[in-house]
Amino acid sequence: MILSKCESKLDVDLGERSYPIFIGEGIYADASYYRKYISGSQVMVVTNETIAPLYLDKTTEALSDYELKTCILPDGEEFKTLEVLNRIYTALLKGHFTRRSTLVALGGGVIGDMTGFAAATYQRGVEFIQVPTTLLSQVDSSVGGKTGVNHLLGKNMIGAFYQPQLVLADTSTLNTLDDRQLSSGLAEVIKYGLIVDAEFFSWLEENMDALLARDPGSLAYAIERSCRCKTDVVEADEKEAGQRALLNLGHTFGHAIETGMGYGEWLHGEAVATGMCMAADLSRREGWISEQSCDRIYRLIERAKLPIEPPVELSVDRFLELMAVDKKVLDGRLRLVLLKEIGSSLVTDDFKMHNLNETLSQYGS
Amino acid sequence: MILSKCESKLDVDLGERSYPIFIGEGIYADASYYRKYISGSQVMVVTNETIAPLYLDKTTEALSDYELKTCILPDGEEFKTLEVLNRIYTALLKGHFTRRSTLVALGGGVIGDMTGFAAATYQRGVEFIQVPTTLLSQVDSSVGGKTGVNHLLGKNMIGAFYQPQLVLADTSTLNTLDDRQLSSGLAEVIKYGLIVDAEFFSWLEENMDALLARDPGSLAYAIERSCRCKTDVVEADEKEAGQRALLNLGHTFGHAIETGMGYGEWLHGEAVATGMCMAADLSRREGWISEQSCDRIYRLIERAKLPIEPPVELSVDRFLELMAVDKKVLDGRLRLVLLKEIGSSLVTDDFKMHNLNETLSQYGS
Repeated sequence: MILSKCESKLDVDLGERSYPIFIGEGIYADASYYRKYISGSQVMVVTNETIAPLYLDKTTEALSDYELKTCILPDGEEFKTLEVLNRIYTALLKGHFTRRSTLVALGGGVIGDMTGFAAATYQRGVEFIQVPTTLLSQVDSSVGGKTGVNHLLGKNMIGAFYQPQLVLADTSTLNTLDDRQLSSGLAEVIKYGLIVDAEFFSWLEENMDALLARDPGSLAYAIERSCRCKTDVVEADEKEAGQRALLNLGHTFGHAIETGMGYGEWLHGEAVATGMCMAADLSRREGWISEQSCDRIYRLIERAKLPIEPPVELSVDRFLELMAVDKKVLDGRLRLVLLKEIGSSLVTDDFKMHNLNETLSQYGS
Repeated sequence: MILSKCESKLDVDLGERSYPIFIGEGIYADASYYRKYISGSQVMVVTNETIAPLYLDKTTEALSDYELKTCILPDGEEFKTLEVLNRIYTALLKGHFTRRSTLVALGGGVIGDMTGFAAATYQRGVEFIQVPTTLLSQVDSSVGGKTGVNHLLGKNMIGAFYQPQLVLADTSTLNTLDDRQLSSGLAEVIKYGLIVDAEFFSWLEENMDALLARDPGSLAYAIERSCRCKTDVVEADEKEAGQRALLNLGHTFGHAIETGMGYGEWLHGEAVATGMCMAADLSRREGWISEQSCDRIYRLIERAKLPIEPPVELSVDRFLELMAVDKKVLDGRLRLVLLKEIGSSLVTDDFKMHNLNETLSQYGS
């Protein structure tokens, strides 16, 4: 048995919709972390077939004081659809869950996004708690209230902004994560360094080997610092009017890769890693970031065992086509997050089309 | 050609999310009413196969300054589903609609609810405008921001609170409404008199014949006064914590009838009309409302050509079963809207189960 040990607590301050993030070891199995944040008597744990055998028993034990049901979904980004979402609604209705229910999302980003959207829309809104079990979801999707599902024609095109009551980021759940998933999470960790925190980027250069070796202390520090970076950006701009868009560094390129290759072929973090390299490349062509800084970026991403080149299958034209339905396109103009320097970024549509074409064709056919 | 004539304007005051309701004749076809409330360049009109031949041409003409697309759905409550909602998302994505788009809901409550929910969730939220074309949607669903779709196991179980930018309630569209639909709308009009406005109830007793004869002035007055009643209640309580629940008079019984008979068999207003009679009956058994007042209620509802008795197919047990998944059930206790007097109502779970059983069995098997 793991003794529950809370390493740190962050507060995401959004007025009425504020909530805490606890980071620690074994905390997801500790009833005392949940109690204050559940106001009704009905709780449904939503998880998937991979996570259920690993962590469901201890979660339900911790929640045994409540009228408890579970909903187990298939595992994978390809199941982040309206149809699978509907299974959550069906389970809630069959269980006679009222508006005062709480949903607990136990799993990675897909489970978190879908459960959050189910909570946002079941009976026009019930409470929910995030228990992210992957590094990616601990540092990214559990902070900021973005929820939703994919559409065949675009990723995350259906959704809502909706905040959880509580996030429990438990480092002990990372021990069962496969290497590729761990690296995928590290892509988002590196992103925070790139967009707002040069010092953290240097820390990552020092500690990448420890992170890959899953050193608990290093992981907890990286999660906490990442969550702080994201929290700072989200607090400043909850509805993504401006500043928050910086979090999309690498994502416009990355979404194009994910959509173009078919959901599930590339992991989200892998696509984002390559997207960040492309954003760095375009920033260099625009004359902002130095060649040396670009090399540091490629090198760190490579050391995290992440891809730095887009799939050869995607032509320039296909890239442009895929990016045209991206939701960061305002009035038909493509806006991208670019880098002024490591730790300093901006959202802009002020770049030369020929530079973008070169970035896209540098690797493509 | 109808000359555009605005009879009155109401402001629904919800802070940041405030919006106006214009009531008049021919206003939906007048470009000047829309212009101020559309901030982007892309507009999609969502309507159905019944409404499109009647009002779509004039609507698209009024919106011809914008990059315009239309999405025509099948007509009927049975199409208020996630699957049909998905057609709106698909049309938006195929048309490369961005986050700065505006959706226009041209139709009755089903179109308004679905389009509003599509707007609430497409790319996590775009703007929308309501052009309700039935009396029911003009006095009810276009005010208050409730949006959503049905689930096989319950009505309106999936949805969001989301406010439009603007509502245009055009009395000229009521000329094509069939008699049964008109009566269905009158059920909600009568409801406002019952819950908060005794004077309006008396006015309705005086003017029911004029309303059934579709006298434009009488209709405009009834719409305006109904919207004011609803606006007052909604402003006091946007998220339905307490006061707003009064708007559900007759709805818990009504939803049970609609669900039990299968969507589309009973019109919403018909089910609500019968539900209000049942609420009046239970209120009388509890000793609140007098027999005389009850009779006035039954008589006015009957004069509006609405049913006052539930379908014989529904047994007491079936009624109770259907009401148990209603979202107004808090922690397993059934809460109902009951009448203290005409124009005075309350939400309560403090009624005797044997009285409820008698209300349910009075008509049932």
